[in-house]
Amino acid sequence: MFETAELGRSLQKDEYESALPDLRARLVQAQIDLKKTPSRVLVIISGVDGAGKAMTVNRLNEWLDPRGVNTHAFDTPSDEERERPFFWRFWRTMPVRGRIGIFYGSWYTEPLIQTVYKKQKQADLDAAMRRIASQEQMLAEDGAIVLKLWLHLSKEAQYKHLKGLESDPHRHWRVLPTDWKHHRLYEKFIRVAGRMIRLTDRPHAPWNLIEATDDRYRDLTSGRLLLAAMEQALEVTKKTSAIGRRDAANPRLKITPVGRNRTILDRVNLKKSLSKDAYRKQLVRRQAEWNRLVWKAADKGVSNVIVFEGWDAAGKGSCIRRVTEAIDPRLFQIIPVAAPTEEERAHHYLWRFWKWLPRDGRVTIFDRSWFGRVLVERVEKFATAAEWSRAYAEINDFEEQLCRHGIVVHKYWIHLSKEEQLARFQKREKVKYKRYKITDEDWRNRAKWNAYKAAVNDMVAHTSTGNAPWTLVPGNDKRYARIFILKDLCKRLEKVLK
Amino acid sequence: MFETAELGRSLQKDEYESALPDLRARLVQAQIDLKKTPSRVLVIISGVDGAGKAMTVNRLNEWLDPRGVNTHAFDTPSDEERERPFFWRFWRTMPVRGRIGIFYGSWYTEPLIQTVYKKQKQADLDAAMRRIASQEQMLAEDGAIVLKLWLHLSKEAQYKHLKGLESDPHRHWRVLPTDWKHHRLYEKFIRVAGRMIRLTDRPHAPWNLIEATDDRYRDLTSGRLLLAAMEQALEVTKKTSAIGRRDAANPRLKITPVGRNRTILDRVNLKKSLSKDAYRKQLVRRQAEWNRLVWKAADKGVSNVIVFEGWDAAGKGSCIRRVTEAIDPRLFQIIPVAAPTEEERAHHYLWRFWKWLPRDGRVTIFDRSWFGRVLVERVEKFATAAEWSRAYAEINDFEEQLCRHGIVVHKYWIHLSKEEQLARFQKREKVKYKRYKITDEDWRNRAKWNAYKAAVNDMVAHTSTGNAPWTLVPGNDKRYARIFILKDLCKRLEKVLK
Repeated sequence: MFETAELGRSLQKDEYESALPDLRARLVQAQIDLKKTPSRVLVIISGVDGAGKAMTVNRLNEWLDPRGVNTHAFDTPSDEERERPFFWRFWRTMPVRGRIGIFYGSWYTEPLIQTVYKKQKQADLDAAMRRIASQEQMLAEDGAIVLKLWLHLSKEAQYKHLKGLESDPHRHWRVLPTDWKHHRLYEKFIRVAGRMIRLTDRPHAPWNLIEATDDRYRDLTSGRLLLAAMEQALEVTKKTSAIGRRDAANPRLKITPVGRNRTILDRVNLKKSLSKDAYRKQLVRRQAEWNRLVWKAADKGVSNVIVFEGWDAAGKGSCIRRVTEAIDPRLFQIIPVAAPTEEERAHHYLWRFWKWLPRDGRVTIFDRSWFGRVLVERVEKFATAAEWSRAYAEINDFEEQLCRHGIVVHKYWIHLSKEEQLARFQKREKVKYKRYKITDEDWRNRAKWNAYKAAVNDMVAHTSTGNAPWTLVPGNDKRYARIFILKDLCKRLEKVLK
Repeated sequence: MFETAELGRSLQKDEYESALPDLRARLVQAQIDLKKTPSRVLVIISGVDGAGKAMTVNRLNEWLDPRGVNTHAFDTPSDEERERPFFWRFWRTMPVRGRIGIFYGSWYTEPLIQTVYKKQKQADLDAAMRRIASQEQMLAEDGAIVLKLWLHLSKEAQYKHLKGLESDPHRHWRVLPTDWKHHRLYEKFIRVAGRMIRLTDRPHAPWNLIEATDDRYRDLTSGRLLLAAMEQALEVTKKTSAIGRRDAANPRLKITPVGRNRTILDRVNLKKSLSKDAYRKQLVRRQAEWNRLVWKAADKGVSNVIVFEGWDAAGKGSCIRRVTEAIDPRLFQIIPVAAPTEEERAHHYLWRFWKWLPRDGRVTIFDRSWFGRVLVERVEKFATAAEWSRAYAEINDFEEQLCRHGIVVHKYWIHLSKEEQLARFQKREKVKYKRYKITDEDWRNRAKWNAYKAAVNDMVAHTSTGNAPWTLVPGNDKRYARIFILKDLCKRLEKVLK
C-alpha cells in the first residue's frame, strides 16, 4: 500500500519557489470563497514519526490566512475528556462552517497506538474504524471536506532522518525518545496503519499518501491537495447553491404514510390514572429511591442521559421537575432545546447535544433533543428528506457511542390524546402566567397532528435500540405519567448498577 | 448582621397562593422584555445549610420560562478547571445577554469554606473578597444584574430543620453528613459569612438576607427580589436605550493628548538590526533554548500567555511563527483575534480571552488581544470613554488572576516607524498572496497614527505591571525583532523556572 509513497520524490528549490506564489494566492482566495458557503474543511495530519507532521502544520498555517484556521494538537485527554465518549474531545474542537480546522493527531491516533502496543485486538481496531468511517461520512454529508494526509517515510528514510537530526547540535532536541521506540516497531506500525487506512479510505473522506523524504515536496503536495479539495468543494457548492439540495437525489427511507393509520402511539393506554392520595405516597417513595440510585451512580461514575419528547402540553416540564427536585443540584443539568443559535447552526446538528453530555456520574436531562431532526425538522421541512432519512442511523450511532462509554440512555415520549391537548391549551390560555406557554406555533403544530404521529411512528421504528429503547408514556393523567417515569428511571438505573 | 433574618417571618398558604399568579406572570413578562436588551441576570444563591437553597433554585426554575435560564451547580472543580485561574469555571458558565443564570454555589463557596475550615487566614478571605467585588463590579458595569441571595436560618432553626428531616422516613436522605458537621461549626460559619457579606455588599451587587424558616416566605421573597431587580434594570435600559450610554457621566482617566508629543514609543531604538548570518546562528540557538524551556515548563506545570500587539505590518505573524516552529504543537495554541462573533458580543469583552487560557504547562499565544479594548475600540469609538477608561483596571485585575495562578504573562508591542510601515504596505500589495493582508482598514488605521500612538502610551502607562510588564520591540528590522522576542521569552521563563 505504501509503495507509491517510497519513490524518492523531491523538488528543486527553484521549482518549489516558482510554484509557491500561485498556490498561496489561490489558497487565500479559496478561504475567502469558503467563508461564504456552509462548507468547512477538516484537515487530518497523520503519518510516520519523523515525516514532519508538525512542520507541515506550520507550513499550512503560514500559507493560509490565520484568521480562518483553527489548529488543534491532541495530547493525552484531560479528565473532562476521559469522562465522556471517545469523540467528545473532537466535537468540542470542530471547525464551524466557513473555516478550516487542522487536526494534528486525531481520532486515528489512539486506535493505531493501542493496536501497535497490543493493548487491543485487531477486531477492536476494525470496530473503531467502522465508527470513524460513519463519523466522517456524517460530517462529509453535512458539507464538510475531510482531507486526510498520511505523511510517509520508508524505514530506511526514517532511520536517516533521525540520525541526521541527532547529529545536529541545534536540532537534536527534535528527536523524542518515543521516536526510536517507534522506529523499532516500524513494520508493525506500518501493518496496522495500512489496515487502518484501507478500512477508512472512502470517497467522501479519502486518504492521501504523501512521500515525506523531501520537505519541499511534502509541503507543496500537502498545500496542493488542500487547495484541490477546497476548489472542488466550492465548485459543487456553486452548482447546487445549498448543501441540502445536493443530496436531493439520494435514497430515502420508506416512511409511515400520513393519515388515519394505526401507529405505535395507538398502543398506549391513555386511560391509566392515579388518585391524588396514591400519587402523593408513590411520589415520596419513588423520589427517595431515585435519589439513592443517583448518588450510587455518582459514586460508581455511571452517568445518565434522559430525553424528554412529547406533544405540546404533554407535561414534559412538570415531569422533569419531579425527577430533578429529588436529586442534588450538583449532579444534574437540564438542557431546554429551542431553535438553534447562530453558533449552533454553524455546526453539525448533533454538535449542540455532544456539548452537554454529562461527566461520569452526572445526569443530563434534555427537554426536547436531537430527535427534533426527525420530528419538527421533518414535518416543517427544515431538513430535506435525505437529511432526516439518514438522521436515524446518525442518531443510532451517536447513542451507541454514549452507551459504549457506559452512559445510561433513557428516552421518553409523553403521549396525549388530541382532546386532552385541546383542554390543556384552553386551560393554559386562561392562566395569566401560563399564557406565554401557548403560542401560534402550538396551534400550528396541533393542526399537523397526523404528520407528527407518522413521524413519531418512524422515529420509534428506527431508533428504539437494545441499549437505548423508547418508552412511551401515557400522559392523559399527569400524576400517572410522573410516577410512571420515576419508576421506569429507577428500574433501568438499578439494573445497570447491580 | 443576621438579626433581621431571624424574626420568624412566615406566610399563610392563601396569602402565598393569592400572590403567586401576579408574580409569575410578571416574572415571565420581565424575561420576555429582558431578551430585547443587552442586559442579563446572574442570581447567586448562598446561605446556611438546610435553608433550602436547592428548593429555591427549583422554585425559580418552575416560575421562569426554562428556555431563558441556565442553572449551574458548582461541585468540586474538574482538572481542566483546577488548571486555570479561579474564576475560569465561572466565566465558562456565564449567562449571555438576555438570559438568566442561576448559580448554586459560586465564587463565594470556596473562600468561605476554606476560612471556616482554617485552611486560609482572614487576610486571604479579605483578598479574595476584594477580587470578587471587582469581578462583580465589572459585570454590573457591563449591564449584568447581580442578585445575591443569602438564605438564612438561626442555629436553633437549623437544628429543628435537620431533626425534622431525619425523623421523616421518606425525606431523611435529604440530610447529608456534612450538614451536621456544619451545624456544629455554625457560629464560626456565620462569623465568616458575615465578614464575607460585609466586604462584598455593594450598590452594584448588594446582598439580600432572606429568612428561610418558612418555605413559602423564602420562595416568594426570592421570586419578588428577582422580579424587582429585573424590572428596575429594564426601567434603566428603557431610559438610556444602551448600556454604554448609561455611564456617559462616569469619571474618566486623564489621557495622553493626541498630537506630536513624545510618547513611550519614541524611546524605542528603531535603528537596531541584525545581519542575515548573525540572525541564522542566533535563531537556531534561541529556538533550541526556547524549546528546552517550554518542555521544562510543561513538566513543572507552568503555563505561558504571550500577547502580540503592534502596528499593522509590524510582523506579528512572522514573529509568532519563529516562536512556535520551535515547540511541540501539543504544547501551544495560537488565537488570532478579529472582530468578535455574535456569541462573543453576547458576553463581557473579556469572556473570549478567558475561554482560551492555557491548561497548566501549556502556551497560549494571542495574536492581538484584550488590549483591543484600549486600542482599536478606543480610537474607533466602539467603546465609550467610560468603558475603555475602566478597562485598564479590569485588564490589570484579569492579568493579576493569571499571575496568581502561576501563569507567566508576556506582552509585546512591536514598534515600527511610519515610513517603514508604508514601505511594507506597498511591498505587500505587489505580492499576490500577501495582498489580502492589506485592506482599506489598514490604510484608515495608518491615517490615525497619532491617535494610536497616544493610546499605546496610555496602555503602557496603565497596564505595565510588575508581574506583567510591557516589552516594546524595535521592529524596523524583522530579524532583530524575532531574535529580540525569543531572547526575552527565554530570559523571562528561565527566571520563573529557576
